[in-house]
Amino acid sequence: MKRTSRDIRTANRYGVLREIIAESPTSRQELAAATGLSLATVATLVGELLDLGMLTEVGFEDSAGGRPRGLVAVNASGGALIGVDIAETYVRVELFDLALNVLARADEDMRPGESLPVQVVGHVATAVGSVVAQAGIEGARVLGVGVSVPGQVDREGGVSEYAPNWDWHDVPLLDLLSEHIAYPLYLDNPLRACAVAELWFGAARGRGDAVVVNLGTGVGAGLALGGGLHRGVSNSAGEWGHTTLVLDGRLCHCGNHGCVETYVGAPGIMLNLREMSPRSTLLHPEDQTSTINALARGVAAHDPVAIKVVRDTARYLGAGIADLVNLLNPEVVVLSSWVAATLGEPLLEEVREAVARHALKRPFAATEIVLSPIPTDPVCLGAATFALEGALSAVTQKSNRRTIPARSRTAPPA
Amino acid sequence: MKRTSRDIRTANRYGVLREIIAESPTSRQELAAATGLSLATVATLVGELLDLGMLTEVGFEDSAGGRPRGLVAVNASGGALIGVDIAETYVRVELFDLALNVLARADEDMRPGESLPVQVVGHVATAVGSVVAQAGIEGARVLGVGVSVPGQVDREGGVSEYAPNWDWHDVPLLDLLSEHIAYPLYLDNPLRACAVAELWFGAARGRGDAVVVNLGTGVGAGLALGGGLHRGVSNSAGEWGHTTLVLDGRLCHCGNHGCVETYVGAPGIMLNLREMSPRSTLLHPEDQTSTINALARGVAAHDPVAIKVVRDTARYLGAGIADLVNLLNPEVVVLSSWVAATLGEPLLEEVREAVARHALKRPFAATEIVLSPIPTDPVCLGAATFALEGALSAVTQKSNRRTIPARSRTAPPA
Ligand SMILES: [Zn+2]
Ligand SMILES: [Zn+2]
Repeated sequence: MKRTSRDIRTANRYGVLREIIAESPTSRQELAAATGLSLATVATLVGELLDLGMLTEVGFEDSAGGRPRGLVAVNASGGALIGVDIAETYVRVELFDLALNVLARADEDMRPGESLPVQVVGHVATAVGSVVAQAGIEGARVLGVGVSVPGQVDREGGVSEYAPNWDWHDVPLLDLLSEHIAYPLYLDNPLRACAVAELWFGAARGRGDAVVVNLGTGVGAGLALGGGLHRGVSNSAGEWGHTTLVLDGRLCHCGNHGCVETYVGAPGIMLNLREMSPRSTLLHPEDQTSTINALARGVAAHDPVAIKVVRDTARYLGAGIADLVNLLNPEVVVLSSWVAATLGEPLLEEVREAVARHALKRPFAATEIVLSPIPTDPVCLGAATFALEGALSAVTQKSNRRTIPARSRTAPPA
Repeated sequence: MKRTSRDIRTANRYGVLREIIAESPTSRQELAAATGLSLATVATLVGELLDLGMLTEVGFEDSAGGRPRGLVAVNASGGALIGVDIAETYVRVELFDLALNVLARADEDMRPGESLPVQVVGHVATAVGSVVAQAGIEGARVLGVGVSVPGQVDREGGVSEYAPNWDWHDVPLLDLLSEHIAYPLYLDNPLRACAVAELWFGAARGRGDAVVVNLGTGVGAGLALGGGLHRGVSNSAGEWGHTTLVLDGRLCHCGNHGCVETYVGAPGIMLNLREMSPRSTLLHPEDQTSTINALARGVAAHDPVAIKVVRDTARYLGAGIADLVNLLNPEVVVLSSWVAATLGEPLLEEVREAVARHALKRPFAATEIVLSPIPTDPVCLGAATFALEGALSAVTQKSNRRTIPARSRTAPPA
């Protein structure tokens, strides 16, 4: 009773576009078979997307004996989407075409302490201007900008409610950004950005229940349940990093002790290394990226300390991921974000063994554990996907006009 | 794309009947307002339920100025439902009318060791025969029997895959029961029975996301997300009892160490008591029920040991429930099953304080924590609800005939 017919129509529209992006070109008949929708429903949705300029007709294929079938594909140049990944140490912005190919990228480093909202907003505005200029596209073709910021987020209000690493409280981020950026803006956090990226383009596509474990400075779990994001009652679901793994264990910045994040977030991994080998040359104090890179090189070079640190970290991770397997019984667990990408296969293998030791046998047997197959920054891709979803859900079914959602204060530049 | 139109029709049918059971008598207009469905859809669903004999027309109410509105109510005597709660130490069976009032109850004690499948099946068959005889109803009016058995369950196959307390593996329970019981049979476990009972009749009704924490010999969490049960890919979601709270802590029968269940299941609470006060007169070795009863009486009488044990147990519980709040961001957490019912308000108060200490502030502020308001055995009620759902989902929309689902090997007795 919670899903209205409007929600279902929007979800169907997402599903059809998701399938077309993955399988372009394709026919209405193939789409109906892949999505489980009726041919009539698919034809209506495809018609809407054609009218919006998001799809294009690309010819016909023979159907054995019957009439030739019309083929449709994503109209890649029908619009542009921008994804913004505000991380603890950098801002990355990518501009995508409608097939979600990266057309331009801009990075801004943020020095420690340089984390006032006005400073971060400045970096984002500069980088957004840069990607639009690099791509050489007209501003009017930008359908929207998705922004990911760590911590707890009020999507509707566009507010960063709590960003623990910077101690932000109730920062009206989209209002601040809209003073510099004239495109429609959408806010969420990296957990949900990575989850929606996997749902549309990665290991969760077509899976019933998936958990996207985000391993970075902070850690968390994006929950893609029943084919959609589970957000919870106040959009804060997924704070797996702040579940207790070691009662009375390491103090966490959230105030609790023994949180998963304190053992497997990048600073937690550095602490695992320091506790094992305080003078290790692998350790770059105050530099998470260099330390994780050094660990990855160390494992490749059979350095016993690096191997032991990855194994210990995987032991904590395995216990924490087993909790997700036992509680949620997902079809797939995806390891995402930069720590997972950097430590890669050696981490994955150790994690699989550790989960096997901790999880119940039957749910473990039903769960695949994989590295994210997304080759680019999943946070930027997911943030751009929020902008795509926003543009799609703003479409009114009866109308052919594109209805631009309502965050921008001024009209997009012509 | 995961929900078919058939799923949605079934969910709508559940929603309408749920509302009618709660608010009998009611009008189609009120039902449309309460469920968010269109008046036409409600009228169709009400028509089906009237044809099935599950509802009855009970007169008219004035509508200011307009035509009088027809009122419908549950036809309580239109059928009977049976719920079976197979627990570690007893079998309880209850027979309900269609308004889910208890008409008859039978209990069978099981001695320790008396846990072969054939022994348990015998107890269930005896008790089912007893409630039908007590209620004096014709067998043909029994729409179905829902059976709850602890552990992991294959619903479709009717198999108890793994019941840890008895070391059952792949017991074909419904096949065994169908040799004695001629009614349609439905199998699931107590976590999901308690969750569906709260969803239809308790604290989760009308809530978006709810977690039903089951505190008995075993512990677990039934997940009612988005208005329906979250089952996971192999129907084993909810094994919160086997998530790690204390890494390398107490050994659990699942093979893991430090599981939530080892600290807050009834045997875990007995161990909390024994570690604090080995010779306490509150402790009844080998008797969970008497020990938990003694603790409840002790707290009421201001016994410092009892108060301390409940506080320590609530501390573990609070950390574990905070994990659920942080990960799932539910609107309500319901404490259910016999340990929660016995320890009651004093436990609830300590748990609320402990969750507040461990959870993130914002999701905690969005979550209510309550004792189950269901006055009868929630497992029997939930199991009967599975039988009701089974009868409803077996209805083919186009037909007025009742299609009996397919577990019973012989026709129901006339
Ligand atoms: Zn924490
Ligand atoms: Zn366990």
